[in-house]
Amino acid sequence: VSAGLLTVDLVGVAVFASSGALLAVRRGLDILGGVVLGGATALGGGILRDVILGEVPPAALRQVAYVLTAAAAASLTYFLHGSVDRLRRPFVLLDAAGLALFCVSGTFKALDADLSVLSAMLLGALTAVGGGVLRDVLVRDVPLILQPGQFYALAALAGGAVTALLDAVGAVRTAAGIAGAATALALRLGSLIRGWRTLPPPGTADA
Amino acid sequence: VSAGLLTVDLVGVAVFASSGALLAVRRGLDILGGVVLGGATALGGGILRDVILGEVPPAALRQVAYVLTAAAAASLTYFLHGSVDRLRRPFVLLDAAGLALFCVSGTFKALDADLSVLSAMLLGALTAVGGGVLRDVLVRDVPLILQPGQFYALAALAGGAVTALLDAVGAVRTAAGIAGAATALALRLGSLIRGWRTLPPPGTADA
Amino acid sequence: VSAGLLTVDLVGVAVFASSGALLAVRRGLDILGGVVLGGATALGGGILRDVILGEVPPAALRQVAYVLTAAAAASLTYFLHGSVDRLRRPFVLLDAAGLALFCVSGTFKALDADLSVLSAMLLGALTAVGGGVLRDVLVRDVPLILQPGQFYALAALAGGAVTALLDAVGAVRTAAGIAGAATALALRLGSLIRGWRTLPPPGTADA
Repeated sequence: VSAGLLTVDLVGVAVFASSGALLAVRRGLDILGGVVLGGATALGGGILRDVILGEVPPAALRQVAYVLTAAAAASLTYFLHGSVDRLRRPFVLLDAAGLALFCVSGTFKALDADLSVLSAMLLGALTAVGGGVLRDVLVRDVPLILQPGQFYALAALAGGAVTALLDAVGAVRTAAGIAGAATALALRLGSLIRGWRTLPPPGTADA
Repeated sequence: VSAGLLTVDLVGVAVFASSGALLAVRRGLDILGGVVLGGATALGGGILRDVILGEVPPAALRQVAYVLTAAAAASLTYFLHGSVDRLRRPFVLLDAAGLALFCVSGTFKALDADLSVLSAMLLGALTAVGGGVLRDVLVRDVPLILQPGQFYALAALAGGAVTALLDAVGAVRTAAGIAGAATALALRLGSLIRGWRTLPPPGTADA
Repeated sequence: VSAGLLTVDLVGVAVFASSGALLAVRRGLDILGGVVLGGATALGGGILRDVILGEVPPAALRQVAYVLTAAAAASLTYFLHGSVDRLRRPFVLLDAAGLALFCVSGTFKALDADLSVLSAMLLGALTAVGGGVLRDVLVRDVPLILQPGQFYALAALAGGAVTALLDAVGAVRTAAGIAGAATALALRLGSLIRGWRTLPPPGTADA
């Protein structure tokens, strides 16, 4: 694994851990809950990715930097958060950043394991959404990935697709990764800020 | 993997994807939510099975037919569903069909990996129920497998047991599989249509 | 795997299966639900541990004692439980016992797979909490591990740490395991009985 890929992965770990810790504060969990929820969000997707690739024990257990980064980011966020009333927006932005970073690192890891472009895109998307789904299920929210009009899975899939396709046509990794992350971020933030929507379900359009 | 086993697996993928898409419509999810929920239902059990068997990357990532079948079945079901009020019955029937097919394909995959009859039955049942549990947890339903009087786990275990035992005594695979799927389907539909029930919990019988 | 480690693992399976079955009774599930919930609680953490270590198929499928122990303990508990009104306390005590036993067996399994002390502690804790998280998610409870003031994750991590550190400094396994389990149990029961608490979330202390 290159130093660049490790860096992307660890920044993703940090922002996802922060998103989990912010959600823990909003739900009134204590510091242990903050670290657990932050850690599950930060490490869940990568562990799933590594287990599916057969790269076990997963990087999260082989390299101490993962656990330390997750624990530090979750603890710091928990103690330094601002007003509880204003945590929704930073939560969603941190989550979007993690989504963009992890779909890139997951796609590259899958390509390094000789998966096809399509499979790499899918595993990248799974890496990106896995931790957030675990986080949302643990606090009994409807996972962001299922909420209408969030472009959540779409952003992860598109980010993975751009990354894998640019890599396949010979682009340097840094460029492919930046383009992939930018695609994911643009779609996710577009749905949040500009209100981009899919079509309403057929038969319920008038409801 | 034989062509017959792949076919059974893919038909199971299609019906489970449809069940997830129907549930997505009933819950007011958009088309992306329909594909995500359908895909999770269709591929979750098989990925769990392959990871537990150590056959990684899982078939769902190695063979493009899995993802395409799941996405096509979920999208088509989402767009072509009938009245939202009448989706409960088709949902349950599709789910029962997936349960029957996956407990057979999971059991055979486990036998091919040299697991014992008992372990093959259990892994077959886990394959059959895994996707549906993921689907139900994602939309915050009580999983069908836990709901009283559904014969859900029983059908999966019995289907796996019949398949594995017939295989162990030398039956041809087609016959063993048909008998196993028929057993699972009969128990599941029996509980749905005929109202077959287990005993009430002791101490709460009068409640 | 030594006979001692297998014994610890199987006693953990039995008490966790009982905890799941008691919860099933409290929620009005039928006997099938009791066995499914008990089995998921008892075997979920160990299967997760073995998959993460790459020891597949997991012990729960390779050694028939696991499934038989889980099924027997869950069924017996389901049928022999006392008054439904008084199941909260035995549920929590059985769960605490399972937590203490599994963080020890999980830590030793990880050390046997040559993981570092830190990773072994983490995997031990994951083994200990995995089945309970699955149980709580399946019945849609807030997982015990996230509930404020339960010392749940802390007990699992501390138990794993004591076990791994004593092993690292050359203690015999029996002593390290007993000390680890006692640490986990003391922290967990201390929070339950003595009301030990973490600090309240900053900014919400007055709420």
